[in-house]
Parts: sequence; C-alpha cells; structure tokens
Amino acid sequence: MLSTRISIRVRYGETDQMGVVYHGNYATYCEVARVEFFREMGLPYKELESQGIMLPVTELNLKFHKPAYYDEVLEVRTILPEIPTGVRIRFDYEIFNEKQVLLTSGTSVLAFIDKLTRKPVRCPDYMKDRLNELF
Amino acid sequence: MLSTRISIRVRYGETDQMGVVYHGNYATYCEVARVEFFREMGLPYKELESQGIMLPVTELNLKFHKPAYYDEVLEVRTILPEIPTGVRIRFDYEIFNEKQVLLTSGTSVLAFIDKLTRKPVRCPDYMKDRLNELF
Amino acid sequence: MLSTRISIRVRYGETDQMGVVYHGNYATYCEVARVEFFREMGLPYKELESQGIMLPVTELNLKFHKPAYYDEVLEVRTILPEIPTGVRIRFDYEIFNEKQVLLTSGTSVLAFIDKLTRKPVRCPDYMKDRLNELF
Amino acid sequence: MLSTRISIRVRYGETDQMGVVYHGNYATYCEVARVEFFREMGLPYKELESQGIMLPVTELNLKFHKPAYYDEVLEVRTILPEIPTGVRIRFDYEIFNEKQVLLTSGTSVLAFIDKLTRKPVRCPDYMKDRLNELF
Repeated sequence: MLSTRISIRVRYGETDQMGVVYHGNYATYCEVARVEFFREMGLPYKELESQGIMLPVTELNLKFHKPAYYDEVLEVRTILPEIPTGVRIRFDYEIFNEKQVLLTSGTSVLAFIDKLTRKPVRCPDYMKDRLNELF
Repeated sequence: MLSTRISIRVRYGETDQMGVVYHGNYATYCEVARVEFFREMGLPYKELESQGIMLPVTELNLKFHKPAYYDEVLEVRTILPEIPTGVRIRFDYEIFNEKQVLLTSGTSVLAFIDKLTRKPVRCPDYMKDRLNELF
Repeated sequence: MLSTRISIRVRYGETDQMGVVYHGNYATYCEVARVEFFREMGLPYKELESQGIMLPVTELNLKFHKPAYYDEVLEVRTILPEIPTGVRIRFDYEIFNEKQVLLTSGTSVLAFIDKLTRKPVRCPDYMKDRLNELF
Repeated sequence: MLSTRISIRVRYGETDQMGVVYHGNYATYCEVARVEFFREMGLPYKELESQGIMLPVTELNLKFHKPAYYDEVLEVRTILPEIPTGVRIRFDYEIFNEKQVLLTSGTSVLAFIDKLTRKPVRCPDYMKDRLNELF
C-alpha cells in the first residue's frame, strides 16, 4: 500500500445553495489528489500524457458521510492498494475536514489508454518498476 | 419501476484536454436528469426544498464505458427502481449518445434531510402516495 | 445586427451558498448561447473546429444586475452587432429571467485561430458570406 | 494600492478540448485570489458573511492574452487600487504563468449586500479602518 495526503481549500463556487460543497466537485478533489500522488511518486501525470498514454477514469464510487463547507481546508488521502498488473489502476480516497472527521470516502478505477489508438494498454514498465521500489 | 428520459447537449466547457467530457460532469448530468424525473412525476424538487426538505446525494457510483464528445446530444435515462420506504431514495441512470450507445451507467442514493435540524427524515407521504399512484 | 434567443434552465450545481447562480457560470451560459447562435445561422461551431479553426474567447465583460435562482429558465439573447472583418468577432448578450427582468448583460470577443499554427487568421469567407446573406 | 500574490495549480477538469484552461474558470481563479487577499489583510471573507454581509460580484472584465495549460502553477496578483468609500469595492487581477508571462488581466467590482434585506450597504467601518491602516 502506498498513500499520500494533500490539502485543498474549498472554493466559493464549489458550494451550492444547501450551503455545502456540491457533491459533483468531489470527483475533482480526488483527481487533484491523484495527480499529486503521481507527482510525489516521481511519476508526474503530465509526463505520462506526453508519452502518449492517457489515464481516463472508468469507474467512480463515492460515499458522502458529512458535508464540507466553504473555506474549509480538506485533507485528501489517496491510497494505492496494489500495484497495477493489467490495463487498470485503482485508487481509494478518504477526505477529512480540519477536525479529522471523515467526510467522504471513495474509489476510482482508471484505464491506461494509448492516445493514438484509443485502445487499452498495460501499465508502463517504468511506472510499475517505480511503484514496486516504493511499495 | 418508473423511468424518464431527457436530452442534454454537451457544453464546450464540459470537455477536457482528452477531447471528451470530463468525468466529473456526469454527476451534474445525473442531477439534471433526476430533477426532470421529479418534475415529470408532478413532484418538483424546488417544492420539496421550499417545504423544508433537502435531498443531498449520499452515494454516487458511476461506470464510464465510452466517452461523450462536445456538442453531442446525450440521452439520460433515470430509473426509480422502487418506492422509498425509509429515509433514502435510490436512482439508476443510463446515459446514451445519439447512436444509442451506452456511455455511462450509474446509481445514486439520496437522503431526505430536514433543512432546519439537518437530520434524516422519512420520505414525505405526499411523495410516496404520488409515486405509488404512478408505479 | 443578427440575434438569437435560447432558454437555459439553472442547474443545482450552478448555485452557490448565497442561494443564487455563481457568477462564474455566466461565461458558460454565454458560450452555450453563442454555440446555438452559430448553429441557427447554419454555421455549426463544431464544423469550424473540424476545419482547423478554433475560436477562443479573448475578452469577456459581464455586468450582473440581478441574481438568477435555481431551476429558473433563463433566456439568453445573443447579438452579433456587426460582421467580422478581421481576426476577431464580437458578441453581446442579455440574460433575462422568466419575468423578462434583465439579470446580466455582457460582451465577449473571440479570435479566429489556426489550430495548427495557433496564429490568428481572418474570419473564413464562407462564414462572412453566410452572415452577409442574413444581415 | 494594496496587493497580494497566490499560486494556483491548473486542474485537469479546468482544461477544455482546445487543450488549455477553459476561459470561464478564470472567474474562479480571481475569486480564490480575492479570498486570500482578504485573509492576508486580516479580513477573512467568511467572517464578513457571518456578520450578515455578502459580497456578490456585480461586474467582471477579463482579457485573455495567452492560454494557460494543465498542471501549470499560475500566479494570481490581486490589487486593491483604492479604499472603498461607498457600497462597492473594485479589484484588479493579473495572472502569470511560471515564466512570468502575463496570461490574463482583469477587473471585478463587488457590492456589499445585507444578507437579510438583500440591499446594498456601505463597506463596514472595521474593514475600511483596517485597509486604511495597511494602505
């Protein structure tokens, strides 16, 4: 298991008229956290794209336990439960508020896709090797 | 089972640099479809809120099978599989493109919440009665 | 002068905790309206892009007179005040609520850009000819 | 004149299919920068709202000189050109990329509004006093 933590401050436009973060925005929070996970592992996502591999989300599951409010600094924990062996990679997320209350938990699955053919490809070796080193 | 269908045209700002709809926007598509489901059933969501009941999403599960592109007119099918008996209501979604290819499927669970106490409440009787009539 | 009108229903996620439409979303409303303007003129924007011309916004000016609320059906009027002669095209917008109260007015300027060179190009002749026909 | 600077990293979902930041997202960048301006001045915006004063944007003017790209760290400079004397406050913005190239410049005007009456009110004295101290 590998995990990282980042902080995200809730933006005004991310709230809705219930006075809490609009649930659709958590997909973005997870994505921001995942990008930082890759960066921290020395595997910047931008580089992956420049090598012709895209990583679209194929599955997203979120449970909203408690609301988040404007201007709160959320902590997003990103967990890689296992090294990808095939064409997919799975991440788990836990989002906490400043009082360490768990607000949202979730999972996303992403697929390695060749930018030109738009077909699934295996997780590149350099990524697998690097993750194996860190695990 | 009750179901409705609506059309949504993909907006430019909803695409990302992969040239497809950003996955986070499907939460919005489902919400727009759900609002029209309620309207079509004669149960406008706005009225529910004005009666002091909010309906936040507590769970969202989405599977992305194929991408959607800018300017496509998507069809979102909203399905109420069963009449809510407790404090929650579940919807299923199927999103198709113009060629009737299934792009995304999903489920969301929402909770009836009292606006003042912010506590869960049962599905209001007028809603249950109306849905029973239509089922 | 050429003008078109479209209707847009306010989405839940477009509101913020003030209980009104978040001001940043009006850029999207104008874009949606502009796309329909082009379509109605027989000049679909998608076709323009497929011909290798992009039309990024280079200037946006908005005045917010009154707020818009959740679920309201807004009317967006798009006005082309004059036929573009150079590398830019300007649109004016007026956004009304259902009671025909003017909520927002604005202007945007867009530049014709070659997709490959990313340099400004003149408004394509077929577009100028078509607009001249309609003016 | 008072000014602050913040950094914002471009999120994936903020790009569009042109491969650059969607222009509508700059309204959000300015808002995030403005909130940090207030915080840095010792005048947190959240506190203003909790005192019953809202600060909706009444005017937004943006010029897009150059595009911003995914994952770039933008610098947003927020400038208060003068202390508000009436019911409005104006900010200027300059957004730079990592190479200090000016990408976007703009202005927004906001109105002090009483949360209950929804009428304009003067800039609160504690804010004027604090800004005067710092100017």
